[in-house]
Amino acid sequence: MSELFLQRAIALAMENVNSGQGGPFAALIVKDGKIIAEGAYRVTSSNDPTAHAEIEAIRQACRVLGSFQLSGCDLYASCEPCPMCFGAIYWARPDRVFYAATAADAAAAGFDDAFIYEELRRPPTGRRLSITQFFHPDALRPFQAWLASSSKKPY
Amino acid sequence: MSELFLQRAIALAMENVNSGQGGPFAALIVKDGKIIAEGAYRVTSSNDPTAHAEIEAIRQACRVLGSFQLSGCDLYASCEPCPMCFGAIYWARPDRVFYAATAADAAAAGFDDAFIYEELRRPPTGRRLSITQFFHPDALRPFQAWLASSSKKPY
Repeated sequence: MSELFLQRAIALAMENVNSGQGGPFAALIVKDGKIIAEGAYRVTSSNDPTAHAEIEAIRQACRVLGSFQLSGCDLYASCEPCPMCFGAIYWARPDRVFYAATAADAAAAGFDDAFIYEELRRPPTGRRLSITQFFHPDALRPFQAWLASSSKKPY
Repeated sequence: MSELFLQRAIALAMENVNSGQGGPFAALIVKDGKIIAEGAYRVTSSNDPTAHAEIEAIRQACRVLGSFQLSGCDLYASCEPCPMCFGAIYWARPDRVFYAATAADAAAAGFDDAFIYEELRRPPTGRRLSITQFFHPDALRPFQAWLASSSKKPY
């Protein structure tokens, strides 16, 4: 863990607010001791609800590396990842993740990621958003095609 | 719920496999009875670990609508959303979500989203990926700047 990288993520989050580009969140990806990608919260300025700092940094780092995996990389974030970013981190597979402020700190500033964490822990029928499974006779056909495909690239 | 839209999502997932563009997943967004965006799994073909079908469809729908929110929209997916997509759906706030295959079906084809769901439920110290908080004296400064900012766009 390098405090300098955490400091840089916090400074980027400050810049993002002060420049009016979005919320108080930033993240960066480090490989071999160097920053290879940076990202900040751009949801409202880019009309993209997935444009959280960690997602932006992960996508940029993958472009730089020409890879869909971040092995050998560390992710530094100004704040604890929300469930979406938590999932993205698991799919991207960096070696380690470090963050400064907590989800509780974010909640105190009006960003209540805790709500989504709670929803994830609820049974589907008890959630505020309706997410419903429907039987369809063809539902398994894409998986059957995938398993039979000789050109698939698993990961 | 319209079976036709679910059928279309499944057909797109089939197409995605058969064309060699990626895994067996697709999603689409419907507003006022019409499909406004479609997305399919492009992680490996676009070197973007966040390019799941739901994320692709949400980003495209937001571009079409010029909005970072999907109120009045339904999301149809060929398969149950993973935790990353679950989070993205909550941030995008469509009215309803419908899906065909289950996470267990995906796991049987080698896509084990269940692992990430399990990790989310574990205490941070018990997780396979190291996600660690470090105290930094400036950690709260971005939030203080945000709360003091007059140009902020909350959501």
